[in-house]
Amino acid sequence: MSDARGKTQEGRFFEDFSLHEVIPHALPRTITAGDTALYQSLTGCRFALQTSETFARRAGYDRMPLDDILVFNMIFGKSVPDISLNAVANLGYAECDFLRQVYEGETLSARSTVIGLKENSNGKTGTVYVQTEGLDHRGKTILRFIRWVMIPKRDAKAKMPDAAVPDLADHVERLTIPRHRLNRFWDTAVTGSPHFWEDYETGEKIDHRDGVTIAEGEHMMATRLYHNTSRVHFDAHLAESTKFGQRVVYGGHVISIARALSQNGLGNACIVSAINGGKHTAPTFAGDTLYAWTEVLKTQALQNRTDIGALRLRTIALKNQPASGFPDAGDNVVLDLDYTVLLPRRR
Amino acid sequence: MSDARGKTQEGRFFEDFSLHEVIPHALPRTITAGDTALYQSLTGCRFALQTSETFARRAGYDRMPLDDILVFNMIFGKSVPDISLNAVANLGYAECDFLRQVYEGETLSARSTVIGLKENSNGKTGTVYVQTEGLDHRGKTILRFIRWVMIPKRDAKAKMPDAAVPDLADHVERLTIPRHRLNRFWDTAVTGSPHFWEDYETGEKIDHRDGVTIAEGEHMMATRLYHNTSRVHFDAHLAESTKFGQRVVYGGHVISIARALSQNGLGNACIVSAINGGKHTAPTFAGDTLYAWTEVLKTQALQNRTDIGALRLRTIALKNQPASGFPDAGDNVVLDLDYTVLLPRRR
Amino acid sequence: MSDARGKTQEGRFFEDFSLHEVIPHALPRTITAGDTALYQSLTGCRFALQTSETFARRAGYDRMPLDDILVFNMIFGKSVPDISLNAVANLGYAECDFLRQVYEGETLSARSTVIGLKENSNGKTGTVYVQTEGLDHRGKTILRFIRWVMIPKRDAKAKMPDAAVPDLADHVERLTIPRHRLNRFWDTAVTGSPHFWEDYETGEKIDHRDGVTIAEGEHMMATRLYHNTSRVHFDAHLAESTKFGQRVVYGGHVISIARALSQNGLGNACIVSAINGGKHTAPTFAGDTLYAWTEVLKTQALQNRTDIGALRLRTIALKNQPASGFPDAGDNVVLDLDYTVLLPRRR
Repeated sequence: MSDARGKTQEGRFFEDFSLHEVIPHALPRTITAGDTALYQSLTGCRFALQTSETFARRAGYDRMPLDDILVFNMIFGKSVPDISLNAVANLGYAECDFLRQVYEGETLSARSTVIGLKENSNGKTGTVYVQTEGLDHRGKTILRFIRWVMIPKRDAKAKMPDAAVPDLADHVERLTIPRHRLNRFWDTAVTGSPHFWEDYETGEKIDHRDGVTIAEGEHMMATRLYHNTSRVHFDAHLAESTKFGQRVVYGGHVISIARALSQNGLGNACIVSAINGGKHTAPTFAGDTLYAWTEVLKTQALQNRTDIGALRLRTIALKNQPASGFPDAGDNVVLDLDYTVLLPRRR
Repeated sequence: MSDARGKTQEGRFFEDFSLHEVIPHALPRTITAGDTALYQSLTGCRFALQTSETFARRAGYDRMPLDDILVFNMIFGKSVPDISLNAVANLGYAECDFLRQVYEGETLSARSTVIGLKENSNGKTGTVYVQTEGLDHRGKTILRFIRWVMIPKRDAKAKMPDAAVPDLADHVERLTIPRHRLNRFWDTAVTGSPHFWEDYETGEKIDHRDGVTIAEGEHMMATRLYHNTSRVHFDAHLAESTKFGQRVVYGGHVISIARALSQNGLGNACIVSAINGGKHTAPTFAGDTLYAWTEVLKTQALQNRTDIGALRLRTIALKNQPASGFPDAGDNVVLDLDYTVLLPRRR
Repeated sequence: MSDARGKTQEGRFFEDFSLHEVIPHALPRTITAGDTALYQSLTGCRFALQTSETFARRAGYDRMPLDDILVFNMIFGKSVPDISLNAVANLGYAECDFLRQVYEGETLSARSTVIGLKENSNGKTGTVYVQTEGLDHRGKTILRFIRWVMIPKRDAKAKMPDAAVPDLADHVERLTIPRHRLNRFWDTAVTGSPHFWEDYETGEKIDHRDGVTIAEGEHMMATRLYHNTSRVHFDAHLAESTKFGQRVVYGGHVISIARALSQNGLGNACIVSAINGGKHTAPTFAGDTLYAWTEVLKTQALQNRTDIGALRLRTIALKNQPASGFPDAGDNVVLDLDYTVLLPRRR
């Protein structure tokens, strides 16, 4: 929405959304080797399939694919100016399905469909549910996810239509299985972990051990890498008058950091197939140190595939508290993420 | 100039410059996808023509060109060791003409010609006027600009020649018009702005709304990206004994940030044709939050071109003060830039 | 080593190393233009041969090679999870030999051989000596170096074998000479320095003049660029309970910064042939400003080569103290590096 007088986007308010509306997002983005280098340098993400061209080819890929969470953040970022520029809170994710591997040189765009609207009882805000799709330059869908955000009303007195809340699946039921078949050359000396799909058990908990402190410049660079323009991440002057008094780290950067930490313990889980659900349970600020631990919620064999299996995981990220006791509640929990990864099976 | 005893550059002092001298600058630089990724991540610049290969090709380009201000900063940076390493102040820009689009893989070099010298009445400093040219690897000029800087004298008693002050044009009179013709595929859903050249009016003011806080690491990374070696941006130890007491953000980074902010309101103004004049009116430091607003100084149709038109703009960047009141003076104004952009016309 | 219960690497303790053991390091890494752009932006390194494709080709190379210290840091980083994750101190380097130029697109891996083990008299720690090799994707060795680190024992009571301390050469005796012959197109106007090999004399000291302050985000990005996961560089929460109370800057970043500073005075010394020895004599923290100076230890003509000569150098990096007095001892000395560079000779 442009402001009344002029040319600039002020972002949408709650009454600007209509149910079933399709919103194409501007500014498609060609992903290059520069973006992947930045992603590794800003997050520490270093799964073998996404960092070694040689390994990727030997494992059965044509080329080294992009990190899935990098792609997620790129598509998310594209949706921000139209969906969440004025968001009070990013409430959750569901039904996130990674449909296709993406490669350097591809140009990604995004569009969102409004699938739910519910005014809050205070009359000042409402929850908007959108399904966002990422598209490659041929228009093929590469990624699909639902998120919901709390958006203020421009005018508290504006009358709103009846609430429509989508039925959200508890998890992605039909996993998208990559067409690439992993071959016998999956070398665990290369990936840094000897543990195949069979080695993980339901209920198992993994402390990812390492901690990483977020620097102010880093989280802003990561957020700009994704073309995410949300003011809460960039404008410290404005933030002075908010309840936090400072910029908030973009939640997607927290997901990336947690995923990067999880490499220590999940080194062969190079492919993210789905994000079943997720919540940013507390804000992260520059200076906070993040730790993470993971519980295996379920191990899942895949039909017709003997090369890979799936693990449904719950990863918890904590701030300023090591993960050794596996805490899953409390003020220090900043992320609670339920997602599904694919791992090679033993031959 | 090397120091008397040794091998190192100490930078030129005022008496080291001669009128009409041509100074070739060292260290040409091949621009890669890594540099453009960093530019986006450090500045937030995201005009469609420079971030989407698909869009650039559909719009009539062979390839995605580099951002003009990135190129400006690269050429400026090359000139620093010979021109402004010892500068007390970067006083202004004029007659900056972008002559050719630049693409990834090109190797850029620079040279400057001394076009004016004027000793200050205090005998301690002088103003040096140079015209700097950027060249591609075939030696073709891609960019040309004049800047003037205040440089200390090595020896206050040194006798200097008579003052020679160049006549500087108020603006670039003959705009360089790109050979590429934009075609009907210029898609405003892609660029993020529905506003064509015809939609802007002389006198119109645009508040670009967003604010971005500068982090210490970010501005140094940007400055190094351009190979700009000026001590005032890097050496906090030295800065303790200066009047500011801290590092100063490179002015070109402020231009980049202002240009990036202007995307919100000028989304189709993807091409910078000229910088007519500019001043860094106050220093910017890490921790400052920058805002920007733009006035349309003039709309200008172009001979023989129905695809594009020009807008002469004045963009003001402010620190720690939102731009909503369109302030153009005061201690918070850090940049006053007069430049000309090209926009597609309606079909 | 995985911890007893689980899947994660906790890093090796002193008793986990065996003499003559060969340790392959995980996670080979494809080096791209994104990595080189980041390297320049994070360190300021800008030698002509590594930043201009045009210059590199004219000088006799097929392509622009990677900066040698970037390659060193990449290989070092790969060795960290297996060698020095739990290191108390990184004690020194020796016999570092750069065997082959590396180019963008190559995938680098690393392996280390334990060549010495010596328990300390306190029974709580020991010194581990390793020779680490960097390999390209064809398995050819590109780089070889020895380093030794102090590692805590897991169990102070564990009995250890007799001490074995390797004989370390004072310097790399047989320099590896690149197969490329520099030709007459080595243009000193391009490299930024008029000084050829013949212009340097044994005993000559060069103050590199410039200072650069390290920002928190920068050193972490550089360290992640190399996939170095050592906790002391990333975890400020953990660091609070250490003697330093804060994160320590990765020593390889200090080497990169010193090397970058040395460009002012050694502009033609584009190729590092060997690191004869080196010590990080004091820790560097974010906020410190680094300066550097260099002494020419020896000038060395090369058999059968009239295009290049070698200089053995000692570069000292200092924190928060300019290098003008050439100090080589004291609390502010952070790096004492003995290495050999190759320079073009006069024709």
